[in-house]
Amino acid sequence: MGPGPSCVPDEVYRALAKPTIGHLDPYFIRLMDEIRSSLQQLMGTRNPVTFPVSGTGSAGMETCFVNLLERGDPVLILVNGVFGQRMLEVARRLGADADSVEFDWGTPVAPPEVSKKLRTRSYKLVAMIHAETSTGVRNPVEEVGALLEDSDALFLVDAVTSLGGIQVRMDEWRIDALYSATQKCLSVPPGLAPLSFSERAVKVLNDRKSKVPNWYLDVSMIIRYWEGSKRSYHHTAPINMLYALYQGLKLIEEEGLQKIFARHLQSHHALVAGLRALGIDLMVEPEYRLPMLNSVYCPAGTDESAVRRNLLEKHDIEIGAGLGPLAGKIWRIGLMGHTARPENVDLFLEALSAELQNSSA
Amino acid sequence: MGPGPSCVPDEVYRALAKPTIGHLDPYFIRLMDEIRSSLQQLMGTRNPVTFPVSGTGSAGMETCFVNLLERGDPVLILVNGVFGQRMLEVARRLGADADSVEFDWGTPVAPPEVSKKLRTRSYKLVAMIHAETSTGVRNPVEEVGALLEDSDALFLVDAVTSLGGIQVRMDEWRIDALYSATQKCLSVPPGLAPLSFSERAVKVLNDRKSKVPNWYLDVSMIIRYWEGSKRSYHHTAPINMLYALYQGLKLIEEEGLQKIFARHLQSHHALVAGLRALGIDLMVEPEYRLPMLNSVYCPAGTDESAVRRNLLEKHDIEIGAGLGPLAGKIWRIGLMGHTARPENVDLFLEALSAELQNSSA
Repeated sequence: MGPGPSCVPDEVYRALAKPTIGHLDPYFIRLMDEIRSSLQQLMGTRNPVTFPVSGTGSAGMETCFVNLLERGDPVLILVNGVFGQRMLEVARRLGADADSVEFDWGTPVAPPEVSKKLRTRSYKLVAMIHAETSTGVRNPVEEVGALLEDSDALFLVDAVTSLGGIQVRMDEWRIDALYSATQKCLSVPPGLAPLSFSERAVKVLNDRKSKVPNWYLDVSMIIRYWEGSKRSYHHTAPINMLYALYQGLKLIEEEGLQKIFARHLQSHHALVAGLRALGIDLMVEPEYRLPMLNSVYCPAGTDESAVRRNLLEKHDIEIGAGLGPLAGKIWRIGLMGHTARPENVDLFLEALSAELQNSSA
Repeated sequence: MGPGPSCVPDEVYRALAKPTIGHLDPYFIRLMDEIRSSLQQLMGTRNPVTFPVSGTGSAGMETCFVNLLERGDPVLILVNGVFGQRMLEVARRLGADADSVEFDWGTPVAPPEVSKKLRTRSYKLVAMIHAETSTGVRNPVEEVGALLEDSDALFLVDAVTSLGGIQVRMDEWRIDALYSATQKCLSVPPGLAPLSFSERAVKVLNDRKSKVPNWYLDVSMIIRYWEGSKRSYHHTAPINMLYALYQGLKLIEEEGLQKIFARHLQSHHALVAGLRALGIDLMVEPEYRLPMLNSVYCPAGTDESAVRRNLLEKHDIEIGAGLGPLAGKIWRIGLMGHTARPENVDLFLEALSAELQNSSA
């Protein structure tokens, strides 16, 4: 019940342990096609360039920036937490001319300020985080996408924690590049970063003046393995992790996205009610709260790290600490994917209540 | 029995499917320490900076070049197959001033020619492949290391296919940066790239003028998660793949490296004898042959791709095709790790014999 990895269903573990076959085996190629089509559904896109990157979520972030930017390109990053900061760092390391608009941690990105910034300069790319895992804030991706309606800028969105837990509509929201991770609401172990590029993003990639300065993550080469009839070998795919992702996506399709979103919300509301009964407040205003990542203020006078340690050692429950300026001030309670079930909320509230009593005793 | 992924022991599949825990869980940290120490043993090194990169083997290659080179740095790459070529491409994309010495595919790197080239220019880094998977050639890493005895150049070696199948002595052979992959002789599914940096390599990394232009693969940050008391979060580790690697390394320690090397050689000799009986020749001269990757000439008049397809469909045996200039001319028969057993050689020879008869019938 931390900020990921989330709980994994037994069916996914079983898929993970199936016999490893070759990355060019015709059976495996069929599996890749199904994964691609499930991801398109889940992301709300028809982009043919949709596949999981062979790395964890941060590899998805790296892939987007390294493929879509060249040295000196002007980009705008919207920052209200650790992962927005990370985007800025990734872009600058690649030589981008990166501006940012910063918002207080725990508050959402504000579209009017973004709009103002967009009028000052012509950006090649605008990037933001949908679900900021460091604070529990849901950022207004759809509204920022609308600001870019008549712009040529690419719109890059991190859906690491949102995908599979709340609505993500890549095509409707005018998103050009989107990445996620397996270990959050997809309930698959960490190791892959589902990614999708729009036609506009692919054009920018194809029109680059310089080669992508990262052979491993060059989407123009990787896609020749994921698409078409030729299936050119690029690098050996993480076969068993892809079995697990396939199975995780099938389970999501079986349950149905609307039911899954409702289950996340229901678990979140039960958690909030239980925490209120314990006198614990959430950090984020109700309308911007993520159901799958709940940032709560540690009660005054409690040893926050001792409570987390005891939850883990005595109750087998992991929750997350605050990051950066929030370290020592908040806990982050995850209700992601398979973790988002009423019985988990009950177990957690009982355990936390016991530990808070111990801590004040 | 292709060029990897190799067969995986049941114990490794079982480890892979164990419950996913957090990447900062104290139990997981202990597992990381054991993985590191097993890798040091296996690689023949005492380097503290030893860990598996969160990506497949090519991510290991990318990690070495992107951390150790800066734009304009002079490097020398020794090329006698696909993976040497890939090194050249990776280095050039990163802006290195890369020279190469090229050798015929199927023949080994020749130290005298390397020595001659080294006298023409002062290189920051010299890179080569130990076991060239595209041809089945064992390159003389120890001899090239000896040429660099009194040089300041970093020595970078790809041990993707060699590690765990033939001797690799990182410290003795004066290697500064070494990477491998899990899906060859370690008999673990693909998804991780074990890597080690010497003290000299770490110094070059620390003395960089520019930040590593790849946040995901920046070793100076990743190592703060793998080493020391703080264990700073960098990116979410691929937890279950690391369980599998842990188990794979334990199995290697239990069997013992010398026994494993002998098993590879024995399987290789049995294969060569059986192939000779079928009138099939190996491409590489005996003294440079890799036991774990056998390149053989497709018999004249056989439809090489039909034979491979029939082996897979009718006998459940995968072998590899030739790459680049060797496409259509050779097969690549893998005897890597858990695959290198007499019963596999027998099954393969029977199946191949049957398919060759069908093909000529």
